[in-house]
This record gives sequence, structure tokens and C-alpha cells, in this order.
Amino acid sequence: MRPLHRPTQVVRAMSSSSASSLSNFSSCEISDALIKLGLPHGGHIPDIQMYSPSQTSDTRLCGPAYTVQMVLASEKSAPKLPNHFVDTVPDGSVVVIDAPPEVKNAVWGGLMTAGAQARGALGVIISGRCRDLAEHRSANFPVFAKGHSTLGQSPFTRPSAINVPLSIKAWSPLTGSDGGSFPPVDVHPGDWMVADEDGVVCVPQDLISKVLELAAKGREVDEKCMQDIRLGMGVQASFKKHRGK
Amino acid sequence: MRPLHRPTQVVRAMSSSSASSLSNFSSCEISDALIKLGLPHGGHIPDIQMYSPSQTSDTRLCGPAYTVQMVLASEKSAPKLPNHFVDTVPDGSVVVIDAPPEVKNAVWGGLMTAGAQARGALGVIISGRCRDLAEHRSANFPVFAKGHSTLGQSPFTRPSAINVPLSIKAWSPLTGSDGGSFPPVDVHPGDWMVADEDGVVCVPQDLISKVLELAAKGREVDEKCMQDIRLGMGVQASFKKHRGK
Amino acid sequence: MRPLHRPTQVVRAMSSSSASSLSNFSSCEISDALIKLGLPHGGHIPDIQMYSPSQTSDTRLCGPAYTVQMVLASEKSAPKLPNHFVDTVPDGSVVVIDAPPEVKNAVWGGLMTAGAQARGALGVIISGRCRDLAEHRSANFPVFAKGHSTLGQSPFTRPSAINVPLSIKAWSPLTGSDGGSFPPVDVHPGDWMVADEDGVVCVPQDLISKVLELAAKGREVDEKCMQDIRLGMGVQASFKKHRGK
Repeated sequence: MRPLHRPTQVVRAMSSSSASSLSNFSSCEISDALIKLGLPHGGHIPDIQMYSPSQTSDTRLCGPAYTVQMVLASEKSAPKLPNHFVDTVPDGSVVVIDAPPEVKNAVWGGLMTAGAQARGALGVIISGRCRDLAEHRSANFPVFAKGHSTLGQSPFTRPSAINVPLSIKAWSPLTGSDGGSFPPVDVHPGDWMVADEDGVVCVPQDLISKVLELAAKGREVDEKCMQDIRLGMGVQASFKKHRGK
Repeated sequence: MRPLHRPTQVVRAMSSSSASSLSNFSSCEISDALIKLGLPHGGHIPDIQMYSPSQTSDTRLCGPAYTVQMVLASEKSAPKLPNHFVDTVPDGSVVVIDAPPEVKNAVWGGLMTAGAQARGALGVIISGRCRDLAEHRSANFPVFAKGHSTLGQSPFTRPSAINVPLSIKAWSPLTGSDGGSFPPVDVHPGDWMVADEDGVVCVPQDLISKVLELAAKGREVDEKCMQDIRLGMGVQASFKKHRGK
Repeated sequence: MRPLHRPTQVVRAMSSSSASSLSNFSSCEISDALIKLGLPHGGHIPDIQMYSPSQTSDTRLCGPAYTVQMVLASEKSAPKLPNHFVDTVPDGSVVVIDAPPEVKNAVWGGLMTAGAQARGALGVIISGRCRDLAEHRSANFPVFAKGHSTLGQSPFTRPSAINVPLSIKAWSPLTGSDGGSFPPVDVHPGDWMVADEDGVVCVPQDLISKVLELAAKGREVDEKCMQDIRLGMGVQASFKKHRGK
């Protein structure tokens, strides 16, 4: 039988902690665990696509978040950064960027990927747009974003803070309007991000061990269901047998 | 001359009826026929993408609809199903799911594909989201949807009815808001669905033979136009010659 | 070092003028130049995707615009065209179509690609939808659009004018609603279009030589930054060294 959820490429943090084991699980399995733990959004940040290493790839990105808050360039009162935000990316981290919804410009491009790779970053997740798609792909650097653009940061947006908690809302890059009533996902620096073709999930740091336990249990149950379903057992019967309901 | 509209993979119902001949025609050719027959929407359900077997594929899905109405889990008064909706999928059918627009969760995943395949279903068309993309692709099971997610059904939505008429509206998965004034498409159980890269079309059962006739005639005329246009005749002249206007 | 921005296929106008040199630059490099020249939108027409020759391709389309204004078929008072709009496409041009946002039908299909190719057109850019995706890909004809559909023009829209200035707004094909406050991009007949995976840019005719100069300078500076960044210099330090800030 084909094993479930085995990506061809796993881009993950090398860590002595058990957190890096999250990369063994799909974003869906992790959301299932977070739902069981009572998170109303299951950690899911909606409507972000994989653009690199390709638009359809088994790649899974997994590592601790390095957070970046972008603001409109017109927000003169927002704080300024002393360094370029890419120069302070920690080795083994996943860059997570929250950009304002009302703009059409990218907040990540080819030089950012080069700088982040040189510092050992694993990939980038953008609630916003990227550009220079061919360069990220050529560098085999994972880029997840809501859309793309030909426009760079200036004169539209700028980074205002790093290593701060982000509250990432659902919104449409096509209109800049709200994505309905789905609750925002809080991403704290050091929370773990898992991103693959199905989407992006944030695992709060204090839930990692519980998520690993529940995801392993969920995997085991789902594999049993899958085996029985493939042999012709009904979905309901297999759920009753293995999930107990 | 290259023949028009020959997909590499046709996933269609084996049927003694002539309906399965619909798979010889592209979704566009079928919409053209339905427009000629006076349907204001040409049978087209907008903004649904092919996600499996791949995002760009010549696959064409064609078969009779098995309909599923999803509701918000909070709609306590809506009917409940005695069985899992996948366990009652008829052999050779296309699952058509209408999900509520305001949610971000998937209503179809890997175990559903396994169950539907075990019962002989041909594919699924979702006015809503799917997840477990790698599993559908690995199973070579056609999945058409408005988007994807890491979240499963629970605790967001649930199936409430099968084999009922659906009235599928245009809406944006990014915002949950209406897709403009485009008329909803009614899908009755047993209507025939045709879906390919260009999109999804529903053919009402009582129009199938007329659609087959008009689509064949449209194909013949378009091929003549195509030949002349490739030889340098103007588009307008070729239309006048072969379409009579 | 890998050279930046070298597409595998460049579809461009053969021209004695220097304008065709625009094809040496990515849409992003050209936007950067137009931003430096003070255009508030950097020439960028947002949220248009490459659908052909494929959804992910290094193809770059580059040539002078032949403009087409589509209107709702219900707009009886709008002008009518004496010829099919494809029959008057000039050799070596890029067809640019502005369609009304509230419809779900395509305004470009397989016969249009055949007619445009027969006349020597290089590709088409549509602020609207296309159909017959397989035919454009098979013809290796570049098609950029906001979405796709199974529906053709009739009875929804019609061409009303060619060789007129277009004012292309940002809007969502999913809802037909406005794309926020991003300024519309004016496309005059003979302006040069550059389109690749990152998006679509319009270069006003009188800015072409300045854009070429600035894009070449920008390329040179970015390549120096890229070299230093890859060798481990910080992004900020490389910008200070090569951009002077």
C-alpha cells in the first residue's frame, strides 16, 4: 500500500528539540490536531499558495517563525528598523511576513531569497505578494504567498518590526477586502510553521508536543481507515471501527 | 491539421445511453450548445479549478451527478444523513458538492477519494474547498474545486442531504461574498457534468440529446472555420462562410 | 554565477526600433524603472496570470499594444466594429483586451488564437477571461488573463472599439468588484507590453528609451548586490555599497 503523506522534499529546521518532527506530518494532519486542541482556526492561514520551488510540488516547509510586520509606507508614525529585515533572519528559521491587504506590490523578491538563503533560512510565508518567481525556483527556495506582482516594496510598503507577534487575518489579494469571519491566526516568534501544497499552518510553541502526539495518533487511525476503505469497507463503518464514531 | 479537443484522459461513465458521448466534447463546446438552447448561464459553474490529477491536465471528467448539500455545522435544524455521503455514491457517477461560501475548510479529502473510488465514482466537483491534494493526485482521481485548505469538515460544516437538487451560485472563496449577478446553476441528480481545464458545465438530463446534436454541429462548423483561418482567411469571413453570419 | 532573468522563450516584436530591447528585461525590472520615472502604478496591471504556453513558464511576451475595448452586449449605444477585431491585428503586436468585470464569459478562444497567429500577433493580454486553454497551449501562443471560463462572448459581451486608449482597472474576476484603490493603468495603442510569470506591465511609448536606460542600470546594480549577498554580505550593506542607500 502507498504510504500516506510522504513528501519528496522536506525543508525543515535541524533541531535537537522534538519540534522538527512536525515535518513528518502534513499541514492537514497538524490542523486536525490543533482543532482537537480547541483552536477555532486549526492554525490555518487561508488562501496562501506555494509558488516555489514550483506551483505543484511535494515540498513541505517546516521550522520556527521569524516574524516581520510590513506597514504602508504612508504610516510615518510606525517604528522603523535599524537593519534590513533579511539581515537578522536566524539560521534554520521560516520567515513569516504580514503585509497590508490594500496594496498590489510584492514584499519579497530575488535578492531577499539570496540573503535569506545565505543566512540559513528555510523558506518564506507571506500574507501578501512575492515577485521574481523564476529566481526563487532556480534557488529551490520555498516561497508561499497570496499572489505575485511586478512591483517591489518602494514606494508602497516597508518593514516596521521583526520578532513581534503577528495577527494574520484572512483577506483577498484581489480586492483587499476581508476574507469573511474566519478568526485571525496569531503567529508568535518561535511558533512552528508547516506549509505544503494544502496550505499553511502555525503551531503555537507550547502545543508542539501535544500536536505531535495527536498527529501521530491521527495518522495511525487514518491509515487503518484508509486500508479498510480501499478493501471496500464503507467510510462510516471504518470511522466507527477505528475512530469510534 | 491537429484535431481539436482531444484530451489524453477521459474519465467518463460507461453507459448504454448516448449520454456518455458528451465526453467527446469540451466543456466549452457544451456551453455553446446550452447557450443556443437558451440557458442564460450556459450550464457553467464559474471559478472552479482542476486540482487533480494535476493543475494543468488534458483530463476530462464526464458522468451523471450524485449531489451533496453541505451546510454550516451550526445549522442544527437542517436534516442529518443516516450514512456517510460517500458510502451511497453510485458506480459511474460524479460527486457534486455545494458547500457554504463563508467557511475556509475543505469538504473533501484523501479518505473520501479512496471511498469514492472503491465505489466506482469517477471524480468530484466541489463548489467549495478540498484538501490532501497529493493523495488525490496519487490516486489519479479527478478533483475540481474552488480552493484548498488544511482544515477538514469538523467543526465547520457537515453533509445534510444527498440526491437533492442543488442551486449553485457564483461566489468567491477568498471573501465568501457573491460572485456578481451571474445566475445560479441548478444541478439535479442525474444531470450530466462535464469538467475540464476550462471549467465545469452541467447538462440537464432532458437536454442531453439536443446538446449532443448541437455540439456535433458546432464542432463541424468550428473545424471548418479553423481550417480556413489557418490558411489565412479572416475570422469574420470564415464565420460568414461557415456560420452564415 | 547564474545570470538573472533569462527566459527560455522570448516572444517579441522584430523591430528596427530599440523598443524590442525591452524583452531583455523582466516585468519586475521594468516596473522598477517606471516607478523611478514617477508612475504611481509602475505600469503594473494586477492579478493577470499566464495561462499559455503553460501556467508556469519562463516565456516573456513583449511587443506593441493593439487595444480592444469590450463592452456588455446590453450596451446598445456603444459603437460597433465593421470587422472582427482579430482581423485587424497588426503583425508583431500584442493584443490587449479590456473586458467588463461583471461577466463570467471568456473574450478569447481557440479560433481567435489561430486568427491572431495567422496575422503575426505575438500573444494576448486580457483583463478578463479566456477559454480553450488546451488550444492556446498546443499552438504555443502566449495568453495572459484574469481567469478562464467555458462560456464564449455571445450573448454576454462584444468588442466595441479597437486602437483606442484603455484605462485598465484592478478588479476581481471572482466577484466583479473593484480591486481596491490601486490606480488604473492607461494603455495606448503602440505602448509596449511586457508580460511574464510575475505579471503584466505597460510601458508608455514616450518612456521606452528612459526605461531601457534605467532598467539596464538597475540590472547592473542588482547583479552586484546579488553577488555580494551570495558571498555573505548583508542585504543592507550591499544596498549601501551599490545603491548608495
